[in-house]
Formats: sequence, C-alpha cells, structure tokens
Amino acid sequence: MKNYEIPVRNIRVNDMFWNGQIQNAVEHVIPYQWRVLNDAEPGAEPSHAIANFKIAAGEAQGEFAGFRFQDSDLAKWMEAAAFSLIYKDDPVVRREMEDAITLLEKAQLENGYLDTYYILKKPDLKWKEISTGHELYCAGHMLEAAVAYQQITGSDRFMNVMDKLIDLISGIFGKGEGKLNSVPGHEEIELALMKAYRATGREKYLKLAEYFILNRGCGDGFTKEESYLTMMEKHPDLDPSYYQIHRPLLEQDTAEGHAVRVMYLCTGMADVALATGNKALMNTLHKIWNNVTGKRMYVTGGVGSQGDGERFTIDYDLPNDTCYTETCAAVGLAMWSLRMLRLEPRAEYADVMERALYNNVLSGIAVDGEHYFYVNPLMIKPDVAHYRADHEGVEPVRVKWFGCACCPPNVIRTLCGLGGYVYTQNESRIYQHLYIGNHADIQVAGGKAALECEASMPWEGSASIKVTAEKPFELALRIPGYAKAFTVMRNGLAVKTVVENGYAVLTVQGGDTIEVGFGMDAVFWCANPRVTEDCGKVCLLRGPLVYCAEEIDNGANLQDLLVDPTAPVSVEPDPLFGGIRVLKARALRTTDDGWDGATLYRPYTQSKREPVTVKLIPYFLWNNRGEGEMTVWINRTGE
Amino acid sequence: MKNYEIPVRNIRVNDMFWNGQIQNAVEHVIPYQWRVLNDAEPGAEPSHAIANFKIAAGEAQGEFAGFRFQDSDLAKWMEAAAFSLIYKDDPVVRREMEDAITLLEKAQLENGYLDTYYILKKPDLKWKEISTGHELYCAGHMLEAAVAYQQITGSDRFMNVMDKLIDLISGIFGKGEGKLNSVPGHEEIELALMKAYRATGREKYLKLAEYFILNRGCGDGFTKEESYLTMMEKHPDLDPSYYQIHRPLLEQDTAEGHAVRVMYLCTGMADVALATGNKALMNTLHKIWNNVTGKRMYVTGGVGSQGDGERFTIDYDLPNDTCYTETCAAVGLAMWSLRMLRLEPRAEYADVMERALYNNVLSGIAVDGEHYFYVNPLMIKPDVAHYRADHEGVEPVRVKWFGCACCPPNVIRTLCGLGGYVYTQNESRIYQHLYIGNHADIQVAGGKAALECEASMPWEGSASIKVTAEKPFELALRIPGYAKAFTVMRNGLAVKTVVENGYAVLTVQGGDTIEVGFGMDAVFWCANPRVTEDCGKVCLLRGPLVYCAEEIDNGANLQDLLVDPTAPVSVEPDPLFGGIRVLKARALRTTDDGWDGATLYRPYTQSKREPVTVKLIPYFLWNNRGEGEMTVWINRTGE
Repeated sequence: MKNYEIPVRNIRVNDMFWNGQIQNAVEHVIPYQWRVLNDAEPGAEPSHAIANFKIAAGEAQGEFAGFRFQDSDLAKWMEAAAFSLIYKDDPVVRREMEDAITLLEKAQLENGYLDTYYILKKPDLKWKEISTGHELYCAGHMLEAAVAYQQITGSDRFMNVMDKLIDLISGIFGKGEGKLNSVPGHEEIELALMKAYRATGREKYLKLAEYFILNRGCGDGFTKEESYLTMMEKHPDLDPSYYQIHRPLLEQDTAEGHAVRVMYLCTGMADVALATGNKALMNTLHKIWNNVTGKRMYVTGGVGSQGDGERFTIDYDLPNDTCYTETCAAVGLAMWSLRMLRLEPRAEYADVMERALYNNVLSGIAVDGEHYFYVNPLMIKPDVAHYRADHEGVEPVRVKWFGCACCPPNVIRTLCGLGGYVYTQNESRIYQHLYIGNHADIQVAGGKAALECEASMPWEGSASIKVTAEKPFELALRIPGYAKAFTVMRNGLAVKTVVENGYAVLTVQGGDTIEVGFGMDAVFWCANPRVTEDCGKVCLLRGPLVYCAEEIDNGANLQDLLVDPTAPVSVEPDPLFGGIRVLKARALRTTDDGWDGATLYRPYTQSKREPVTVKLIPYFLWNNRGEGEMTVWINRTGE
Repeated sequence: MKNYEIPVRNIRVNDMFWNGQIQNAVEHVIPYQWRVLNDAEPGAEPSHAIANFKIAAGEAQGEFAGFRFQDSDLAKWMEAAAFSLIYKDDPVVRREMEDAITLLEKAQLENGYLDTYYILKKPDLKWKEISTGHELYCAGHMLEAAVAYQQITGSDRFMNVMDKLIDLISGIFGKGEGKLNSVPGHEEIELALMKAYRATGREKYLKLAEYFILNRGCGDGFTKEESYLTMMEKHPDLDPSYYQIHRPLLEQDTAEGHAVRVMYLCTGMADVALATGNKALMNTLHKIWNNVTGKRMYVTGGVGSQGDGERFTIDYDLPNDTCYTETCAAVGLAMWSLRMLRLEPRAEYADVMERALYNNVLSGIAVDGEHYFYVNPLMIKPDVAHYRADHEGVEPVRVKWFGCACCPPNVIRTLCGLGGYVYTQNESRIYQHLYIGNHADIQVAGGKAALECEASMPWEGSASIKVTAEKPFELALRIPGYAKAFTVMRNGLAVKTVVENGYAVLTVQGGDTIEVGFGMDAVFWCANPRVTEDCGKVCLLRGPLVYCAEEIDNGANLQDLLVDPTAPVSVEPDPLFGGIRVLKARALRTTDDGWDGATLYRPYTQSKREPVTVKLIPYFLWNNRGEGEMTVWINRTGE
C-alpha cells in the first residue's frame, strides 16, 4: 500500500487564511518577481537571471552577472508561475512562460547542456567544479519547474528541454569507465528527478536519483580533483560535513552542514526510499529526522543555528538572536516532512510540516507580499542586530529582494503549490494532513472522488469536508498534536473513528459531509533544559501558530517581561492585518526602580514589578509594523 | 595639591596573595618569555621578536617575521624584566637586558629610527602607514621599558636610545610646514611619554604627548593620504571609531572602537590632563569613564564586547559567551583607573582598578604562570566555543603563547610592576588604594617615610601598616565599596578618621602602627535590567573577587542551577590552589525529569528540582583544572 502524492494540479486551495497570500502571490508577486528577474523593478537589486539567458541565447550582448546559481531564481519563478495557473489561467503568465522556455531552448547547447554561468563565464570548466558549481542544483530547480508546467498545462515543451539535459547528466555521471563518479555539491536534483519519475514513470530519473543518493559521502570528496584536501584549500571555512559528504550517507545519523542542503537531501532520500523500498535509507532518514526534530530545530520549525556556513551546529545549540533559520530551510523541512508522510503517515510528521509552513516559511514574506526575510530570528534587538558582527545576515526588517535571492521565489512557489501539502493517499485511503480549505479531485478506491473542504484554521479548529465519490473510500483525518477533544461528525452525527498513528480513520462515500472539530488552547511551551538560551523562558503556541511579543505592542526592553505560565491566556480577535487572533497573557514587568545610566551592577534586591498584560501576535506576522524588538521566548515568573 | 605617582622602584610588594604569582613571574615566566622571544621554547609558537632585532642589527641573516608590532613583545618583556629586578637582582636578567639594549643600539638607524618591521620589511614606508603601522605604538612600549630600566637600575643606556627616537618623532610629527600632522594608529606612546616626562621632567615628552592627545580625531583621518575613505577602502571592516578618530577627542563622550586603544588613550589623556590642568580633557575623561563603567563594562572589569574589531559595541551589549574582554584591555582599565586616582582620589576609581586587577587581569594567566588567556569570557560551554564561529577568539583553555602575543607579557609587566598601583600621593598625603602587603619608601611632607604593610586580602578584609617617618603626614586609607564596618586602629586604639571621597584620612607619625579592618560578605549582585544577557541571573562577589561556578565542581549543564539569592552564602577555606576561600550557595537544580533525547519542546510544567549546594571559586582561577563549563552569572530562583 504505497502512499503517493496527489498531483498538485488537482488541488485548488480556497481558504480564508491562505487565499490572501496566494492571491497576492498570483496577482502581484509573480508579476513583480518577473520584473525583478528582468531587471525592470525600480528599487530592487538587479537579478540578471533573464539577461544571462538572453545572452546565452544570442539575443543580447553582455557578460554573465549574479551568483553562479542565478539560473535557479528563474527556475523557481517558473515553477511558481506554473502553479499560479491553477488559480488564474493568465494568458500573460502563459506567454511569459513560453517566452522563457524559448529562451531556454535557444540557450541550451547542442548536447543538452544548460547552465548560463558555465556557458557564458567558464565554458571550459563545465562539470569540473562539482562541489561549488551548482550546475546540478540549477538543473534540479529547472526540472521541478518543467514537471509542474507539464502537469498543469499538458505542454511537453519545457520537459523536452529538461529531458535532453537529464540525458546528458545521466551519460556523464555514474560509476564505471569514463564516467564522472560524483554527487551534487548542493542537493536538489535528487528530489526533482523523483518528481519527474513520479510524473512520467521513466526509470532513468529514478536511476540517476538513486545513484546520487546512494553515492553521497562515498569517497574522499566529489571527484579525485575535488578531494577534501583540495576543497578545503580552496574553501578553508567549509569542511566536508558542510556538503553532507563527511561519511557515506547510510552511515550519517545527524544533520550536519548547510541546512538547506540537508533538507533537500533528505527530501530526495525519502523519495528514493519510497520508490525503491530501501530500508537502510529509511533507517538513516529516521535517525536524521530524530536528530533534527529532537535536538536541532527551533520551535518555529526553523533549522540552521549559525549564519557562518548557514548551517546546523551541535545538539541543543539554538540561540534565538544569532540563528540563521533560513526561509528556504523551512521550505525544505516542509518538503521533507511531506515525504515522510508518504513513507509513513504519522501525524507527528504533519505537525512538523504544519509548524514550518505556518511559522518560519510564512514569516519569510511580508503581508504586502513584496518584502522578504532570508533569516528568521526568534528574538531581535534592532540596535544589537545592526551593530554586532555575530548577527551576520540577521536583518531587523524585511527587504525587497536579495542579490542572493533564493528565498523569495521559494516562498512564492510554496504558496502557489500549497495544495500539494494537504493530502497524501494510497489505493484506498486519502490522508488529510492539513485543514486548509480546498477543492481536490482524486482517484481513489478504483473510482473518482472529490473533496470540498472548508476550514477555519489556524484561528479555530474546525473543518467541513464534502465528499463526492464513485466508490466508498477511507478518509484518514489528522489529529493535530495540539488538538483537544478531537471529534468527527458524519452528516451531522457523531461518528466513531479508528485512530491510527494520529489519524482518525473512517469510511466515507459520496454525499457525506464530514465535520472535524477540535479545541485549540493557547499553551505555554518550554524547551528541553539542554537549550541554554531558552532556560527560564516559555513561548506561547496556539494550534499551529507560534506567537511572539513585539515592541510596538509591549514597549521596548521585552526582557523586562515575566509572563506567568500558570495564569490563563485569553484568545482575542483583533482587527490587525484584516482580522487575527491575538493572545493576551498575564505578566509582571520589572520597573526601572533605582537604576540609572550610571549604575551597571548593584547588590541584588528583588526588583519592583507591576502586573501587565502581554499582547502576542502570530510569529509569522512580526515586523509588519516597522522596526522594533521581538521575542518568541519570554522570561517567565519563577516557581 | 597635585597627586603624583610614587616611583615603582620604591615599592616592593610582599603579599601572601600576590607573592606567588610575582615570584612565579620573576623566577619562571621572565626566563620562559625570554626563551620564547628567542624562539628557544619548545611547544610555543616562535616569536621572532629578537631574531628581527638581530637581523636589523646586522648580527643575523633573514627576513622580518611576525606581526608588524612584534617589537612591542620584546619591549613589554624588557619592562617586566626591569621591574623584576626589584624582587630579584638577577645578573642573568641584567645581562639579558644589556644584551637587548645593545641590540637596540645596533638596530637603531643613524637618525634615531627604530622599528624592525619597517627597517627590514618596508624601508620606504616609514611613517607612511600611520593608521596600521604601529611604529608609535612600539616606540611607546620601548619608552615605558626604558623609563622602568632607568628608574630601577639608574642606567641611562636604554633611555638614551629612546631619547634619540623620541627626538626623531618630535621632529617629524606636529603642526606646521613640513610636519606630519597625525596621531598614532594605536595609542600607547602618549602614556609612555608622560611616564618619561614624570621621570625626567623634560618638557619635550609632555609637548609631544599633549599634541598627540589634543590632535586626536581632528581632521578626516590620520593624514591626507590616510583619510577615512582611503582607510576604509583598505580595511572595510574598520571604521574611524575603531581608532577613536571619529570626532575630535574633546567631543567624544562614549568608548568606541578597539578596547585596548581606548584604555591606553584614556590613560595618556588623564596623564596629560593632570600635568596641564586641562579642564576640557578632564570633562571628556569623566564622560568616557561614566560610559564605560556605567554601560559597557563587565562585572569582572572586562571591556570589549565583541571579538570582531576587539571592540566596544553599544550600551548594555554585554554578552557573557561571545565577549572579547581582552586581558590587555583590563590591564589598560587598571592603568586608566590609577590615572583617575591621580587626578581625583575617589575610592570608586580604586574599586574599578582593583576589580580589573583581581579578576580580568589575573584570569589572563594560569596558576602555572605559563598559560594565558587573551579573551576572558564570563561563561563558557566548551563544545559551543569550539564549534560556533561567533565565539571568535574565545578559547576554552589557556594556551602557551600567541602568535599575536600582546597579552602574556602585558600580564607579566603588570605583576612585576604591581607596586605602582598601591599608592598615589601628594605633598602631604599618601593614599593607599590597595591593601596589598608591601614595603614602600616615600618622600612626603618634606621628609622621608616608609610604610610596611601586611594584608590578608583578598581573603579577609584586614591590613596593618607600620609607619616610619621623619615628619607626620596624612594617610588616606581607601574604604572599599564592598567594605562592611570599616575600622581604623592606631597603635591598638580605635581612631576616628575623616572620610573624604571614600578614603579614611588620619595623620600618622613615625612609630605608628595602623590597623585597618572591614568585613567582606559574599554578596549576590545583579545587573542593570538593560543588560539582556544577565536578566534573571545573579553573580556572587566577595570583596574584590568575582566568583564563578565550574563544571568540575558542579557538574555539566550549569544552566540547570537556580541559586537562591535570599539564602545565606557560606565562605569556606578550601585547600585548592594552595588555599583559597570558596563560596557555597544554596540552589535548586532542575532534574531532567521526563526529558529525553527525542523531545525538544513540550507544554510547560514546573520542573522537578532538588536542593543542591553550588560551589564557586574566584573567577581568576577558572580553567586551572581542565576544560569544562564555567559561568559567572547564574540563573536565580524567582520571586
């Protein structure tokens, strides 16, 4: 009973919470990013991405500009644009896509090669800088976009371009005489190949992905020319673990190195494990999953504790202000979680996926849809962040675009492809992981079915699902880890369900209306005491949302607040941002009694404190009202 | 009534607490560092300092090696070695000093120039790299050494060498046609010139020092060729404030930039203010002092909150684990405090001086006398310090030597010159700032006097002072900020004193025995709530000593400890390190109830806790028993 994905074209999100951001992405951000990619948006850093392709296509003069992985920005936009057609079949976007594909066709070399950095800048070094070159990374993102475009439009044009490139790569990489025995310097193509495999059924995609996965970390580097020694000579700050090649992948049991790389690797690894049934891979996945979620993940679903190397560090090293917690890494964690759900539908994977999506992914984009965070700290003091060198990459305000613009298009493709995260299925059962309103057309139990879901998440814990179906099938409804008193009604009547691995399972048939309800309390959480930075602190969660306190609501010096984790927290509607739920918690605030600008230390006396109410807003909404302090973890009163 | 220094040769420390380290410095470290400077110590990084002089002197072949300020390592050793003759008139050291002076004489150019880096490596760039060149810095340290050598041995040889160099510098630097109008890139020569002025009375030293001080920050950089713009092109990470030239010195009111530079600048500035009575300089000194001690100083007397730039950052930014708190900066703070005491004998300056000496200076050297800290953090998790890039420079264990070896000889010259910190005087009064056992010969009230002091600091608050004197004089005894019930006895009888600015003043005469006594409680201290990192924490101080908890005494995960700041603390003798006082505080320790390697976050419940006793040792002794966790600031129980 393999669990597989439901094609994203078949799921159209229609949800009071997400519609705004998706509509914004479709109506504004896709056109905005198109202008950025064309260097036509005033005030944004020039992207050069399309200019590079035009030069490679012979349509413009000039030199390559931007990062060596600049092509991937266009790729991510193309994937998002393809997804956007689900929501708005815009002839302008279709034409832009076709124009872009024409550019790719013209830029592609006779043998299938396609990477503007090497075509234009380093023609003699193709496939010679595997560790840092990003050719396979860019190919992966292009392939993801091509699969999306084919699935949504039915057009093979883009896929044909990519097929030629993948055939070239398959011919070059591998074991044996005359082959280049290596793995990608930045994982990504593995998961893309597996998407292509699932979409087309062509074995060549699976074979190449499996080779890249199983070969990872075998040997002393990427190639003979790029041994550990050579790499570290060229990049003394990057050790083999940065690339996840410090030991054979099957012997790895912790998340090491560049966080986005790890997440993309694990996503592709889970895809290969599912397709091949490789138990050793599953075992490795479980070990790394447990290491990440049990020792190296922020409560927001963020990963990557250090800006230097944008990487995982060591167990329980989770500073809130000098973290990296890149938006792309949270996207990666959501992707990986979805794959784990395909491997084994356990609600705990969905809890992590949901947490990453609603917090660290969504915080990456402003409510205006046009400003982005790359780094998503859990605490900020703007003056410290501006000043200190150890706050590398930590920006106190979202910016319009980045020279290294991996995150903005990654958020947009995630928003436009959000439907893909809602369900997985097997032959006879549909798993609903996220309570996001949507319409889904699904093949199940040998017949056609459709689900029409309305939901009131994340503000309230309820959803209703109208079922249309030719044949009865099993519906497995996730019981979120935070749910209180989970109930299921069928056509207005309470129904008993079988609970399996955190899912309430029942058989449904056409005409059924299923209603799900569960309470969501605002709950104080604490961290494992090994996390030094969270000692004596708590954070507030309600449902999938992590909350935070901002200076604009609570005044400066948020460290003066001591929330009382034993007092009730009120959940209140607030007109902010078009209507949200804010939390109000009881706290004491130390007053500045006796302290002045001349005194830095003094004998301890109990501080004077006054009772105050702390107002908390969802973390993903922070810094939408100007620069100021913010904290997720708040000091608590003692015991 | 000017306050002035008592020549260091006249004060011989003889103190149960300091004798060990001074004797160690004299017997072992001076010879050890001499071997290091001669590249003859196995296991220590080669210094090259003497080799450079030999090459410049024509006595050896080779190329300059080491940092451009390598000469200063020899200079600091020479100053320490000169001081060491107070304690042990060792013919070997005398010969080494004479040999070194011979080398200087031979290396010195005809016109007086003396800096091996420029003589050997960049002969055409003399006086052309003022911002980074360190020629004036090295000259300053050499001059300090020459003054010490002259004062202690009576020999003019070394001073003659330096006099030629200072004459050269005086001819080159200054305002007006053909002069180089600039200031040192690293302050140091100002305070050295003032030492030479006080020792010799020669006005030329004062004039040059005054010029360097008053000219600082006037103009757009060091010279026309080294404008801000040029400097920042060459060193984009260093802004003008790094060098304290961001505005005219008299308009500066905060401590900015490289911490050692600031401390040396303020020391020289105070010297000039005292010698010239310049009120504007005094005003500036007060502002910067208040900024440092009121907003930017660690409780250990450490300054410099950030490794990047080894610098001051912003008010209240005092992280305990990613600080810099360089040993040299604490030496600088002690030097500056001593100058403030000469300007105005107020006990608060002595409190800071004593705190820096007993904590951040002394922590810079191991009890074995041969291992050193450059950075003196107030908290360490060794695994985090080893791993994280933002712990730049933070070593969890002392090392034998440093390629950039400013700190080790700086500690040694401070130890050997410690007598200079005990007293200041004016015509009719002697101020005793530190209760350190010593014998001092002093001219006061128009006659000869001698003080024979025995003290039991820092373990107990008592001292006895036997007075020999031709004429009666006033003795002003510091009442430490931490003293409880300060009493003074004369010849066994309680005596009433007049308290002036924190000093108990009485008139004494030959034959008197003065006994000082005061209680020293172990006291919990807290930090200004603006210091985010110290929120919810306390530290324990007793007398001048800051205490810390180490893993070896208290187990790992020191963050699990919650001391009770309302419970009594016991002060206990302990045989560690030859006999010290340890503190034992009551605390709760959170037990790891229910937490396991799989759980990172969970809904808050009050942790189980068990009562424990925390053992604390003086901070300066940390890391003398192997690598482990340490913290000065400890979480406290709530209220």
